[in-house]
Amino acid sequence: MIKFSQCVDSMRTSEIRDLMSVAMRPDIITFAGGMPNNDLFPVEEIDEIYNGLDDKTKKIGFQYGPTPGYPPLIESLKEYLRSKGLPVDTNEIIITSGSLQAINIITKLFVNPGDTVITENPCFIGGTSAFKSYQANIVSVPLDSNGIIMSELKKAMEGEAKNAKLLYLSPYFHNPAGIIYSKKRKEELLKYLDGKEIILIEDDPYGELYFDESSKELTVPMKTIQPEVVPICYTGSFSKILGPGMRLGWLLASPEIINKAQLAKQSMDACSSTFTQVLADQFLRKGKLNSYVERLRITYARRMNIMNDSLQKNMPQEAKWVVPKGGFYIWISLPEHIDATEILKESMSRGAIFVIGKTFDPMGVKNNCLRLAFSHTPEDEIERGVKIIAEALKARL
Amino acid sequence: MIKFSQCVDSMRTSEIRDLMSVAMRPDIITFAGGMPNNDLFPVEEIDEIYNGLDDKTKKIGFQYGPTPGYPPLIESLKEYLRSKGLPVDTNEIIITSGSLQAINIITKLFVNPGDTVITENPCFIGGTSAFKSYQANIVSVPLDSNGIIMSELKKAMEGEAKNAKLLYLSPYFHNPAGIIYSKKRKEELLKYLDGKEIILIEDDPYGELYFDESSKELTVPMKTIQPEVVPICYTGSFSKILGPGMRLGWLLASPEIINKAQLAKQSMDACSSTFTQVLADQFLRKGKLNSYVERLRITYARRMNIMNDSLQKNMPQEAKWVVPKGGFYIWISLPEHIDATEILKESMSRGAIFVIGKTFDPMGVKNNCLRLAFSHTPEDEIERGVKIIAEALKARL
Repeated sequence: MIKFSQCVDSMRTSEIRDLMSVAMRPDIITFAGGMPNNDLFPVEEIDEIYNGLDDKTKKIGFQYGPTPGYPPLIESLKEYLRSKGLPVDTNEIIITSGSLQAINIITKLFVNPGDTVITENPCFIGGTSAFKSYQANIVSVPLDSNGIIMSELKKAMEGEAKNAKLLYLSPYFHNPAGIIYSKKRKEELLKYLDGKEIILIEDDPYGELYFDESSKELTVPMKTIQPEVVPICYTGSFSKILGPGMRLGWLLASPEIINKAQLAKQSMDACSSTFTQVLADQFLRKGKLNSYVERLRITYARRMNIMNDSLQKNMPQEAKWVVPKGGFYIWISLPEHIDATEILKESMSRGAIFVIGKTFDPMGVKNNCLRLAFSHTPEDEIERGVKIIAEALKARL
Repeated sequence: MIKFSQCVDSMRTSEIRDLMSVAMRPDIITFAGGMPNNDLFPVEEIDEIYNGLDDKTKKIGFQYGPTPGYPPLIESLKEYLRSKGLPVDTNEIIITSGSLQAINIITKLFVNPGDTVITENPCFIGGTSAFKSYQANIVSVPLDSNGIIMSELKKAMEGEAKNAKLLYLSPYFHNPAGIIYSKKRKEELLKYLDGKEIILIEDDPYGELYFDESSKELTVPMKTIQPEVVPICYTGSFSKILGPGMRLGWLLASPEIINKAQLAKQSMDACSSTFTQVLADQFLRKGKLNSYVERLRITYARRMNIMNDSLQKNMPQEAKWVVPKGGFYIWISLPEHIDATEILKESMSRGAIFVIGKTFDPMGVKNNCLRLAFSHTPEDEIERGVKIIAEALKARL
């Protein structure tokens, strides 16, 4: 009889994993996975970069690197983040294995078992699983189309989340909610947080993927506003702007936090892949990122429009959603009494899948929403898939 | 004032990190880093593999992979482990970011704060740091030239380590001790453990690197003996047989343990780099590993012999060591009253460095030993470096 530790109790199988095997079937149209389409990856650019590396640099890629990251990548990333207005000179960077590892490390540094973490509801499941793996008590606060609802946040922070250690937010093209925080909401938030004893995780993996230039100003991180009203851990990722298979993300935070983060990472995996860090460095250094991301914005905007148009044509009026200004997702809200699991079953039998709402509720309960990712579905399948879901929904309404 | 969690208290900066900046100086001969030499990496093989990948497979490398690992790599790794006699059909595999992540995950699964973990003394520092990061109470048991000292292990397991959750061993070309467990010692160990409530971590990153064919039989893992007397988590790594920069290792364990390990990894980094997993799969699948490792064995054996010869010529008689039959390290023991930190200072001022003994003592105390790695020092520098250390030692004896 094997006895597992206490933290194992808080782990659960995600609903997404089970869906993925269905998603492999060729007869299924999938809006489930929150990932780029394989055909969008910058394969030519990386081919050129790999074959242009000198022997010495290639060998460095095979070797252990320093725990904070491959030094040239830290430099080129610094320049990239500086161009976004981020305070790279007073803060430090650690390269992590995806931004998920950054979130995991921050949780390790600040959360003792039973401590409270405030999240949005809905919330990125990677965040939820990292917090739960440290036996955090999660208090989640609902979103509206402009961000976290301030009155609800105040109620939480003056009540059950009074001594919360972390506030975890994904303000830019939220996964799964698809929204972006308004400038006003960010100002209200920072004003309210001023002087509170809490660490803010500002998670920003999708910020580059705005659909038109006018939305760009909305993607300015709160971390750019100095001095900080509370310590901000700014996390980001190469997953959406190069490829998740590189497993590279970062944390930008105060030297004090980064110093401890290095110790934590030393005990986790020593360093992230030097091989992929060498490639990511050249991708930034040779200016390939900007032209690639430009291509992505156009593609994702087109896919979103196809999806949005067919939703408008086909969905019953009970279905509501905010048209996203960037990112990967449309989040469909249904009347409270609807159970997304039932819709999914019906829809799956007709040939289309998505992720059900309760996957993103940290309590695993609220289930009247559907997450539809438009990022990886072939464009000529989107309309057909949406129709199937709309029919499934009508059959169950 | 930032308040860190309890586990941060147990993290410490390793002595190795500080040494690394000295090791970069061109005037310094270093035996410090436990890494392959950059010139040994299979760059040509990986070039050939990368450029031979079809477009579809390359794109898979850019994408998220399943948490347990890239399925073709799991298959090819299974064949590789099967050829070593390991029970791959009744156990399962998870690909990890180095074997360190495997050790970290196992600790997460079994260790609550304050629980005891038994290690060897000396012990791989990655193991020590992983155990400490979960606030484990470490009880370490000394080694002799044939492995863990059974009378000491019994004393520990019947005394202060009575309820230990994990027993962590590196039986094959130990880092830092350089020894390999004798067949007899392994038998005694398994006989003693039979029926005990403990999980054995059998960590085997160096096993392939035996210096002559007659030592090969010593590298047969305890995990090959079925049924297991206690649950065995067998961990390994591509770091020494392909390159640490790939950040790929594995855990072979019972389906029950692997199932939980997947949940833990999901909350840590979702998956290891698919990009490097695709390359590692082809490296195995195309039979490149065997010819490459054959080359490594010859090279490391030659380096070890150069180091051993010059140690015999130059070291004072107070210095004792076991001539390694494989791996990366010679571990020099000195009389109890000698402080390796003093020797290191003297030696560094003369131009050669190594890692001091207490780095590998989980208590950070015992300091009358030196770890000399012969794996990455240019062959024409080994003798000069050994002479410097010998002189430094004589000056301080």
